[in-house]
Amino acid sequence: MVNREVLESFPMKAEGSYSYNNNSSIQRYGVNRSKTIIEQAIAEKLDIKQISTANRPFTIADLGCASGPNTFVAVKNIVGAVELKYEQRPEFLVYFNDHVTNDFNTLFRSCIASNKQYFMSAAPGSFHGRLFPKASLHFVHCSFSLHWLSMVPNELLDQTSPAWNKGRITYGNAPNEVVMAYSKQFAKDMTSFLNARAEEVVRGGLMVLLLSYTAGEIRSSLHGFVGIMDLMGSCLLDMAKLGLLSEAGVDSFNLPIYLTTIKEVRELIKHNGHFSIENIEPLIRMVAPDAEILVTHLRAAMEGVFKEHFGNEIMDEFFKRLVKKVAASSILPVGNIVPGELCIILQRKFALRMLCSTQDVV
Amino acid sequence: MVNREVLESFPMKAEGSYSYNNNSSIQRYGVNRSKTIIEQAIAEKLDIKQISTANRPFTIADLGCASGPNTFVAVKNIVGAVELKYEQRPEFLVYFNDHVTNDFNTLFRSCIASNKQYFMSAAPGSFHGRLFPKASLHFVHCSFSLHWLSMVPNELLDQTSPAWNKGRITYGNAPNEVVMAYSKQFAKDMTSFLNARAEEVVRGGLMVLLLSYTAGEIRSSLHGFVGIMDLMGSCLLDMAKLGLLSEAGVDSFNLPIYLTTIKEVRELIKHNGHFSIENIEPLIRMVAPDAEILVTHLRAAMEGVFKEHFGNEIMDEFFKRLVKKVAASSILPVGNIVPGELCIILQRKFALRMLCSTQDVV
Repeated sequence: MVNREVLESFPMKAEGSYSYNNNSSIQRYGVNRSKTIIEQAIAEKLDIKQISTANRPFTIADLGCASGPNTFVAVKNIVGAVELKYEQRPEFLVYFNDHVTNDFNTLFRSCIASNKQYFMSAAPGSFHGRLFPKASLHFVHCSFSLHWLSMVPNELLDQTSPAWNKGRITYGNAPNEVVMAYSKQFAKDMTSFLNARAEEVVRGGLMVLLLSYTAGEIRSSLHGFVGIMDLMGSCLLDMAKLGLLSEAGVDSFNLPIYLTTIKEVRELIKHNGHFSIENIEPLIRMVAPDAEILVTHLRAAMEGVFKEHFGNEIMDEFFKRLVKKVAASSILPVGNIVPGELCIILQRKFALRMLCSTQDVV
Repeated sequence: MVNREVLESFPMKAEGSYSYNNNSSIQRYGVNRSKTIIEQAIAEKLDIKQISTANRPFTIADLGCASGPNTFVAVKNIVGAVELKYEQRPEFLVYFNDHVTNDFNTLFRSCIASNKQYFMSAAPGSFHGRLFPKASLHFVHCSFSLHWLSMVPNELLDQTSPAWNKGRITYGNAPNEVVMAYSKQFAKDMTSFLNARAEEVVRGGLMVLLLSYTAGEIRSSLHGFVGIMDLMGSCLLDMAKLGLLSEAGVDSFNLPIYLTTIKEVRELIKHNGHFSIENIEPLIRMVAPDAEILVTHLRAAMEGVFKEHFGNEIMDEFFKRLVKKVAASSILPVGNIVPGELCIILQRKFALRMLCSTQDVV
């Protein structure tokens, strides 16, 4: 009953030259960039008296932690900022979460080596469902995970639907019906995520979401990450033409990834109603990575989903072609935001009666 | 600061024909046999009002869980018995613990398949140190783990010490100094285990320890498991004589395993003072396993420690010889307790002032 494992689960590779462990510096950049925003949120918004951690550990969850090492950096930052709020250091309990298929063995071995200052635990399962007991978390961190959808929307594979996504692997450059199918799935996932966390996070607790997004309002824009995903589709079609894979294989494949816009995600959170938005801030990247580094990072994070569908044999060829296409494109201008990252600070709303009693005191 | 990883850490093998997952039915027998004792302890000793789980999940930890499947059976039994105490079912949180080198990936994948009725989490690290926040556990289960010492006592390897254990790999048939060195290490480990749990278990919380022990008072008796370990040493010496391994290799090896007696463990717990002994009960095994099955089980649980010292190459030969020696010995009479198992039920003592206030009410 407790964990609903999602249909799609493509863990990051933990070891080897294309592993997430060795190729996550782009995501690390986002984690580092978000540090000051998180520190400020903890300093200004976290009321440790109201969230009453007396005799209980301050409990943090990192959702979508992969197998390290970024998760340890993020957690260390959070623990450091929370410590400053207490006269006497509380005990800290940190839950690391990712899909059941994640390499937790590697995560545990790296963590023990990192001289951690907290009790460590891992909670496997999909964060679209419940993972933790009621009101058991004080702080949730979720970094570069929420753009992964829990499943590919069914319509995209339905030949009779106007959202049938023939010849593409994503919604970039696609009819509006395709964009809407992706957007609907993202809304569904985001809502189940927020509902689950609303039960788990104590009132007044904070939640930091770092996610890739689309700057501006056109969700199917071919700039940034959506453009790169479109180039991935284009590589696959090229390879289909050369007979390296089947065209039907491309038609039946869609990336379970969707980049929201600020407007869209803000409306979803407001409509959900359990969390107040304390901050939404794009993270500015001053120097874009070069094509090869970018693609190696994308491979570490995304290879699983391609391998599952197209097989391991074509992976080298596919990503080699992608480097060339990205380098030849205008997707990576120096000084641009590639891919766009958004830092959202949410606070679990206090109960109405608590607000009333606070007003009474005033 | 939190986890002190022990020197010795030899995880059970998770996969393959000699894996613990496929060869743990002897331990399962103990888990099943202890079921009624645990159910009775929960029914009679667990006062859910006093341990005040209101708005908090009922929290269980299985320490030394290996990679399954026995741990799931044990946890299911405990959850089932605790449920009966509540009018309204509480949320359950279960922590699975073992060494950092344990195969948690396999554990997680098996657990998700088992349709569990609780929130699952894993806490890696040595149970001789702190693993969980203060007063966060209501029930601790520790099965067939505490006879593993955290380290081989140093004296056994010291040629100048009267406890130098030349020509043996355990304390069976050894001088009293060797037995005492083992016993002292067990006392140290048991005490650090009890001290750590005393901080973590709520007052009134229960702890079940299932451990191999020596029936009677002679700790170096060559009956039961001590006798089998002695046969292991004898196999190694035979192989040294044949030049398959070095005699010095045998001299420098000692099994970090010690089987306590009822008297000894009772005194250790009493002297520690944090837990009251609610029950100590030997589990009667009516039918002893045959030599081959027994050795396959021992191999699944113990191969790691031999492999680490003697190398993988001699493992097949070693365990083949052990089957023959066990079969030829009088160690496995039908109807005997082989190896002896002890079920101990402990309760975290209530604070003195709580006892007083209870008396006041009376």
